[in-house]
Amino acid sequence: MNPLRPDTGDPITSVSTPAPIIDENIMARNIARVQTYMDEHGLAFRPHIKTHKIVAVAKAQLAAGAVGINCQKVTEAEIFADAGIGDILITYNIMGPEKIGRLAALNERISALKVVADSHATIEGLATVFSDRKPLTVLVECDTGGGRCGVQTPEEALALARQIIKSAGLSFGGLMTYPKPGSAAQIESWFSQALSLLSANDIACPTVTNGGTPSLFQAHEVRSATEHRAGTYVYNDRAMVRAGHCTLEDCAMHILATVVSRPTADRAIIDAGSKALTSDLLGFEDFGYVVDYPEAVISVLTEEHGTVDLSACTGRRPEIGEKVRIIPNHTCVVSNLFDEMIFHRNGNVTRVEPVAARGMVW
Amino acid sequence: MNPLRPDTGDPITSVSTPAPIIDENIMARNIARVQTYMDEHGLAFRPHIKTHKIVAVAKAQLAAGAVGINCQKVTEAEIFADAGIGDILITYNIMGPEKIGRLAALNERISALKVVADSHATIEGLATVFSDRKPLTVLVECDTGGGRCGVQTPEEALALARQIIKSAGLSFGGLMTYPKPGSAAQIESWFSQALSLLSANDIACPTVTNGGTPSLFQAHEVRSATEHRAGTYVYNDRAMVRAGHCTLEDCAMHILATVVSRPTADRAIIDAGSKALTSDLLGFEDFGYVVDYPEAVISVLTEEHGTVDLSACTGRRPEIGEKVRIIPNHTCVVSNLFDEMIFHRNGNVTRVEPVAARGMVW
Repeated sequence: MNPLRPDTGDPITSVSTPAPIIDENIMARNIARVQTYMDEHGLAFRPHIKTHKIVAVAKAQLAAGAVGINCQKVTEAEIFADAGIGDILITYNIMGPEKIGRLAALNERISALKVVADSHATIEGLATVFSDRKPLTVLVECDTGGGRCGVQTPEEALALARQIIKSAGLSFGGLMTYPKPGSAAQIESWFSQALSLLSANDIACPTVTNGGTPSLFQAHEVRSATEHRAGTYVYNDRAMVRAGHCTLEDCAMHILATVVSRPTADRAIIDAGSKALTSDLLGFEDFGYVVDYPEAVISVLTEEHGTVDLSACTGRRPEIGEKVRIIPNHTCVVSNLFDEMIFHRNGNVTRVEPVAARGMVW
Repeated sequence: MNPLRPDTGDPITSVSTPAPIIDENIMARNIARVQTYMDEHGLAFRPHIKTHKIVAVAKAQLAAGAVGINCQKVTEAEIFADAGIGDILITYNIMGPEKIGRLAALNERISALKVVADSHATIEGLATVFSDRKPLTVLVECDTGGGRCGVQTPEEALALARQIIKSAGLSFGGLMTYPKPGSAAQIESWFSQALSLLSANDIACPTVTNGGTPSLFQAHEVRSATEHRAGTYVYNDRAMVRAGHCTLEDCAMHILATVVSRPTADRAIIDAGSKALTSDLLGFEDFGYVVDYPEAVISVLTEEHGTVDLSACTGRRPEIGEKVRIIPNHTCVVSNLFDEMIFHRNGNVTRVEPVAARGMVW
């Protein structure tokens, strides 16, 4: 909990820093824009909660038309299930008796729990616990070019689908990918080959789920996909601006920071360090975009200090005590640092939401 | 809270992953070694709690002979004050009425609260709240080469010392630096010039406090220093091994992770991503040292996945479900991600400590 939390109605600029703040209007616009796009293209949309980790935001996404949510871990899913959300896809290989036991308990109490698997070992682990009384739906994760988890070929996907179908407690849910951005044709080629193989073997494939924000507005080019998952679009960040998904004006999250030192003419120190901005570079050479001083460069972060190089600033330079707004390189990881998120509209605090799934890595 | 927390006595290898674990024996050895060095050189030692953020560890450091603790923020100091620790130095420019108000409340209830300042503005802010009934001790932060906060010249240090002395509610506590590692001669030159200036102006300088783990065992070369502050030494990490401060065997913190996927012969995916290891590179090109597979390279992190390149591994390669131990690049930032820390000795869990000051950035 932020022990210096603001009250509703307080000017957002009065919030104790460093603080992540969310513009309600921008967030609402992001939710509506993406849901409209998915609706227009007949794609089911499943927001990934990793970006916000907040129950109220997930409910806003569902109210706009999302079919369910995407989590990464069992402990995250438990939090959203507790809040009444019944359609949850966990895009992770769940293994080990403790986690699978909790997964089974979760499967008993929500309507549509799904997980993914990319190996015989993962499926074997799940098969030992679930039963045909209430089978667990398992999708096969496919590496269509993302280079993380996933089977490497459509033939392997078929083999795992068969193993799932043979397991009494499991039900084959389809195919899932964590894709490489900008590779719609490659993803489509992969999926269409896998679907042909499944079809040739009389295996129905209920869902084909693609994901990602960077190329979200090309999701319709993956014609085999029935569903798209995305997280970052809800707040957006500097990396999404660079990817062409949005503009700086579509970034709902800012880090409000205070200039605590001006040791030299060219150096400002702000109270947002890696404990507020994280060290995620995502290909950038600096640690965030200073909205109020676009020529300023956050060149170094230590835990509680951000070193800002002002040498390129042609106009005014920030003074000690001044507050500045920063668009983070990567919004999702910032959410994971704070127990509470401060929302604002038209310059005033609207609400403080618990980041309920913060730190849930299990 | 880790909802999958282990019981005392459990084998440490049975802990749900990802999990940061601390070897009690190594930690105790690190505490003793550094305290012995400081005692031998007549330096007061003030551990920085940023590395562990745990009350019980701070108490162990004090029991070994530390004079007090070092915090970075008021909210951190409050937690350790609540635990009965009375000598706290906050090495930060505290500004804004809310934080200064809390600082004043803290000053009422502990015996020796100290802060630093590097500008007239910071001192003015403090001077408005504190009174001569119980003055606040303020040290001047000096940039002796670290390039972060701090006055740039001994003359500026003198000017700020004078301003502190003139303020009825403030008491001049001395000089403080966050130094550049490996620059003992430069720090000493800076401090000795400043001390001469202060002395020439009849200003007593009770404390000269230097800091840092990387060059900790050269602390005695800064002869003007009366005190040294360090945090990382308590756990150590990969960056401290590279700096020559310690060996891999002196690293008390490991991240226990499970191999959740083996998509290709050369690729393993572990369940420790940036939410467990952080993205801090600190000059490394990869995200941690895999103790069990030294040739493995953690090449990419996303939030919940670590991508491990096995192509250089000449022997066995890890299998799905296998647990591996990782020494993080930077231990302090890992502590900030977890609500609880798991301690172990001789293979078994000894205790689970709350990371009470996690997330306290205010």
